[in-house]
Amino acid sequence: MTVLYISFAHRSELRQAKRIVVKLGSAVVTRGDECGLALGRLASIVEQVAMLQNQGREMMIVTSGAVAFGKQRLRHEILLSQSVRQALHSGQNQLKDMSLPVLEARACAAAGQSGLMALYEAMFTQYSTCTAQILVTNLDFHDDQKRRNLNSTLHELLRMNIVPIINTNDAVVPPPEPNSDLQGVNVISIKDNDSLAARLAVEMRADLLIALSDVEGLYDSPPGTDDAKLLDTFYPGDQQSITYGTKSRVGIGGMEAKVKAALWALQGGTSVVIANGTHPKVTGHVITDIVEGKKVGTFFSEVKPAGPTVEQQTDMARTAGRTLASLLPEQRSEIIYALADLLTEKREEILSANKKDLEFAINSGRMPASMLKRLSLSPSKLNSLAIGLRQIAVSSQDSVGRVLRRTRVANNLDLEQITVPIGVLLVIFESRPDCLPQVSALAIASGNALLLKGGKEAANTNRILHELAQEALSVHNVRDAIQLVSTREEVEDLCRLEKMIDLIIPRGSSQLVRDIQRAAKGIPVLGHSEGICHVYVDHEASIDKVLKIVRDSKCDYPAACNAMETLLVHRDVLRTPLFDQIIDMLRTEQVKIHAGPRFASYLTFSPSEVKSLRTEYGDLECCIEVVDSMQEAVDHIHKYGSSHTDVIITENEETAEQFLQLVDSACVFWNASSRFADGYRFGLGAEVGISTARIHARGPVGLEGLLTTKWVLRGDGQTAADFSEQGSMKFLHENLPVNILGLFPV
Amino acid sequence: MTVLYISFAHRSELRQAKRIVVKLGSAVVTRGDECGLALGRLASIVEQVAMLQNQGREMMIVTSGAVAFGKQRLRHEILLSQSVRQALHSGQNQLKDMSLPVLEARACAAAGQSGLMALYEAMFTQYSTCTAQILVTNLDFHDDQKRRNLNSTLHELLRMNIVPIINTNDAVVPPPEPNSDLQGVNVISIKDNDSLAARLAVEMRADLLIALSDVEGLYDSPPGTDDAKLLDTFYPGDQQSITYGTKSRVGIGGMEAKVKAALWALQGGTSVVIANGTHPKVTGHVITDIVEGKKVGTFFSEVKPAGPTVEQQTDMARTAGRTLASLLPEQRSEIIYALADLLTEKREEILSANKKDLEFAINSGRMPASMLKRLSLSPSKLNSLAIGLRQIAVSSQDSVGRVLRRTRVANNLDLEQITVPIGVLLVIFESRPDCLPQVSALAIASGNALLLKGGKEAANTNRILHELAQEALSVHNVRDAIQLVSTREEVEDLCRLEKMIDLIIPRGSSQLVRDIQRAAKGIPVLGHSEGICHVYVDHEASIDKVLKIVRDSKCDYPAACNAMETLLVHRDVLRTPLFDQIIDMLRTEQVKIHAGPRFASYLTFSPSEVKSLRTEYGDLECCIEVVDSMQEAVDHIHKYGSSHTDVIITENEETAEQFLQLVDSACVFWNASSRFADGYRFGLGAEVGISTARIHARGPVGLEGLLTTKWVLRGDGQTAADFSEQGSMKFLHENLPVNILGLFPV
Repeated sequence: MTVLYISFAHRSELRQAKRIVVKLGSAVVTRGDECGLALGRLASIVEQVAMLQNQGREMMIVTSGAVAFGKQRLRHEILLSQSVRQALHSGQNQLKDMSLPVLEARACAAAGQSGLMALYEAMFTQYSTCTAQILVTNLDFHDDQKRRNLNSTLHELLRMNIVPIINTNDAVVPPPEPNSDLQGVNVISIKDNDSLAARLAVEMRADLLIALSDVEGLYDSPPGTDDAKLLDTFYPGDQQSITYGTKSRVGIGGMEAKVKAALWALQGGTSVVIANGTHPKVTGHVITDIVEGKKVGTFFSEVKPAGPTVEQQTDMARTAGRTLASLLPEQRSEIIYALADLLTEKREEILSANKKDLEFAINSGRMPASMLKRLSLSPSKLNSLAIGLRQIAVSSQDSVGRVLRRTRVANNLDLEQITVPIGVLLVIFESRPDCLPQVSALAIASGNALLLKGGKEAANTNRILHELAQEALSVHNVRDAIQLVSTREEVEDLCRLEKMIDLIIPRGSSQLVRDIQRAAKGIPVLGHSEGICHVYVDHEASIDKVLKIVRDSKCDYPAACNAMETLLVHRDVLRTPLFDQIIDMLRTEQVKIHAGPRFASYLTFSPSEVKSLRTEYGDLECCIEVVDSMQEAVDHIHKYGSSHTDVIITENEETAEQFLQLVDSACVFWNASSRFADGYRFGLGAEVGISTARIHARGPVGLEGLLTTKWVLRGDGQTAADFSEQGSMKFLHENLPVNILGLFPV
Repeated sequence: MTVLYISFAHRSELRQAKRIVVKLGSAVVTRGDECGLALGRLASIVEQVAMLQNQGREMMIVTSGAVAFGKQRLRHEILLSQSVRQALHSGQNQLKDMSLPVLEARACAAAGQSGLMALYEAMFTQYSTCTAQILVTNLDFHDDQKRRNLNSTLHELLRMNIVPIINTNDAVVPPPEPNSDLQGVNVISIKDNDSLAARLAVEMRADLLIALSDVEGLYDSPPGTDDAKLLDTFYPGDQQSITYGTKSRVGIGGMEAKVKAALWALQGGTSVVIANGTHPKVTGHVITDIVEGKKVGTFFSEVKPAGPTVEQQTDMARTAGRTLASLLPEQRSEIIYALADLLTEKREEILSANKKDLEFAINSGRMPASMLKRLSLSPSKLNSLAIGLRQIAVSSQDSVGRVLRRTRVANNLDLEQITVPIGVLLVIFESRPDCLPQVSALAIASGNALLLKGGKEAANTNRILHELAQEALSVHNVRDAIQLVSTREEVEDLCRLEKMIDLIIPRGSSQLVRDIQRAAKGIPVLGHSEGICHVYVDHEASIDKVLKIVRDSKCDYPAACNAMETLLVHRDVLRTPLFDQIIDMLRTEQVKIHAGPRFASYLTFSPSEVKSLRTEYGDLECCIEVVDSMQEAVDHIHKYGSSHTDVIITENEETAEQFLQLVDSACVFWNASSRFADGYRFGLGAEVGISTARIHARGPVGLEGLLTTKWVLRGDGQTAADFSEQGSMKFLHENLPVNILGLFPV
């Protein structure tokens, strides 16, 4: 049996927790006057506890709800006996309106305990899990013999895979005394379920105590005030920095009591999480989320990590980023040059860190060769990386602070629209560590703050590359503008930093992009989730061009998002030598062909019919479908495409121009391979990515994608009233010249 | 007792349903081999049923789960009796691994029924609701006497406010015969809970039957295929157009049986909704959502509404919008001119429709005078509306298809970036009907398709204005590009049309904007949720300018988003005559002053201290706070502002330029009123709105906000391979001239 005597230092370690005490508190009680049992929440808690138990963990529940259950039951009984006849004959819901006797809590507890246990038993039975009832009082912990008995009973139950359900024996305990010895380190009174759970967790050497409540957790100032922030992790040394909010509505024990109980448990070696068990969106998985290490509620940890939290990192990045944005363009370029130089100067250190990562990956034996190749750095890779960085430094000089529009609104009232950085970018990238200096250079050039989240497999390489980026930033005292997020942080948690991050850029597989688009509800994501690109071969196409373009579009790099997935062929091409040549070429290139339904119907022996015309093969595979006309090709593209890149091959200029006009995709090409849809090939300079979104940036995105604008108005005291009908001024709205050459960077 | 013999025609009418049968089906059974009761779902169903019952509705439950419950119970008992000793001593979870006897379903049903009912009773007790158990067989419906007995028993229970829980008497019924008389119109066999629920609903003249299952509802083609769409509403006449997917995993009765039962109930006068009761995100409110008329699952209706569904409207709009986008700019202008003319020609019809709306609003007596004013149209309002439209027609001529960038990628390979419409816009506007022609003109000018959702209070006015817009669009055969969404449609449901709508623009209160930003998870929203604007009075400010600008910023239109909310004052200004003059001016203007914490600390008798420095008063109220320096003002703005509009008043140019540079807001002004943050005052021509987003559009947004770009590449057969190291071509990336004058519309 694994028992840890030291609490976990970080949430991610909670996954190892074997013995867990779940304290339910107000999570299972409904609010308001009609205080009763919250059945839905109770059931979902049972479901989660049973699941964790089935994973081999030892689960204990400290329950509330007996009083609430009993109150409902007694109330019901009393009312029925008082008024059964009236109620039966009125047909109205008079039960609700009748005055109620005041019920004593202990009587309610006694009346409710058995029903509550029956409910637990029925519920756990559904998961083939047995339960046992334990009622305790304060004295059971003070008397050594009783404590040993309790301890061994619980151990025996856990050994038999039974979930003990523990409650204070409310029917017999004296009422709690508000100011007794809860402060003590070695002694804790059982005066409520918080202290009971803490005491029990320590006594049983539990790894984790989950205390559910109806508050989110601990705040650094009273919830609702301007600066109140939920503490993700609470370190006992910081106790003076928190203030307690209002008491919870139901049951004894406000937040202060909870925190004291939690600290007591923590000192006893049990990790603690205080979380809201009543939030409808998370109730169904609050316990399992906590055990999976997700950021739910407040985690208590004795070990304060050396570095800042990710929230602090984001704050630091934003502040330093604002200074970065206010530097002169030359100064930002200097930083990028410095980083380029460091890549060469510190080559040995970088390669040795990279070697560590590679060795670890090879030893793990789980990384495919293609990924190893992406992970690995070499002197020549670093060299071309440095060259690329210097190009960014040159080409991006005038990206920030460019004047896009100047308007004389009125005399002495001039308006400018200028480019400014977006703010804080979060770039999430997989294996490829060379991404880090590239993205850093783009962020520096555009004056944006940057949070970097790299893959675990490149941790050592990323660490040193990030150090170099910060060293370069130090040249102009903006070291903190780029932050490397710990590998422990979950992408999902980062995507929740809604008001702190302005744009997320995933660099990696389309699966990564899709996952992040799903997780990042409130934050815009720059990226493309799929590329279902079409090449349409018109009946007036040139044979040579068709063969060249179709081959290149499919075979140049089949995994790319701009590779062709569906070949649309004009019906008249079907029984011509050209068509045979296309098929021969695809066979030679070993492209597996799937037939669209229409194409299949033309053939005696057809290849396998496609399952869906919306498939992104990403491999040497494609679909062929037949269309009657250019217009039908356009309709097909609109129906099944992903608006990424679509191509027409024809010698008829009129047909081509119509296609270019009609197809509603980010990139539309005439007689050119779909593979040209790429920032480098478009000549955009530094490539940020490809976007299939319809707002902000579309298609291949250059540095402009990292910029927004702000409006600057310079006046000498004008007011809106001056321009009203009664006012003395008139709008001029005269366009003033801007520096056209600077308008789009080359 | 209200009993409706005709089913409801539209979901919104479901709110009137008084008698409701809820059929639980597989919603309360877990999946997989370990088939058991899904307790969390069952509990939340009980919660919802009890809630509806407490609203005065008559609720009946047709339950499943007895077999599942019994299976778990018997399994458990058998295993325990088989192996209690081993299990007790091994301590391992061997129960799971042991082979299980095959349990007969009827025995399980018998064993489970009592436990299931006990569970229901315990759960409903929590809501002070009584339950009763009814077990029925097919025969009970065929025998007239038995049917009458059943009927009167159920009526008696409902009258007594008891929830009948009905199940087939599985222990005694014969196994179902697959091909019997389910097809019949007047007869329906009870062979599963679907037919039982349908039979019972009709027998009891229920208004609504909610059939929960583990599928979303009915699809028009097998779920998972390319074109499968969930049917929001199903009309019996369309039965041939649907295909049935796979059978549900648990219990008798696949989708076909469900549909037949539903149709049978519908013909009997009961409305039916088939929905998924197992989806974790909605389980907690699936039943109440249905009763509130929300778009959940498939609604069965006998009355097919005359018009298209909102999904069909969106499709029609997109198709017609694409044609609109391909028209010549002059043609789009012609449409706008035609609409402007119609506003004058059809003045009488418009005003008489508007009069109807006004009369209804006045008679309802619930509309404040300010809203009545916004709702009301007049000949002069229509006149200036027509003038505004003609201005849009003139100024927007070259907005679509403008070339923003031209690049010679290589010889005979030219790239253009051109402006194109975003796609389908959804504009949601409140009371103000003049919004409709304005927004229509903006959409037409920018070549976008448009869905309009206006307020109920302006229904008649909006209808005629929309007809005129379509009449104008007919000039170039794009009538369908603008669609008016029925007032019955919920904003929340529209916001879910994720892949069909490209941009949502709310025009109305900031509350509306916030609600829509919350609801529109997957679709971008153009708008501003709050404007917490600051004016900073520097110690080197001119008295005259301070008084003018502060007065205008706060008092010109206090409800506007660009009105000042917080006045930041340099410390040195505090004890000067200027400060007294500011306070006097604000008092004269009847502005209520709140003190920031720092300001309050300076005063002996301070006005009420602010609750939050992030308050948007939107009224003649503001907060005053003291800062030590311009930098501290900037820090305050970054901490508490909403990045909308912030102003500095100073005569020191250096301080001003630093402020303009440092403040990270959409609009930053020097010596000018915050009220200038407005598309019209900026001279942007047609104003689309103000955006506080940091991507796509920021600050006041003109027509550009409705445009995106596409990339057009014209080649003569080039491939990416031609440009590889082995290839024969080199990139030129030469910038070609563009028509600069057209770059930004005046």
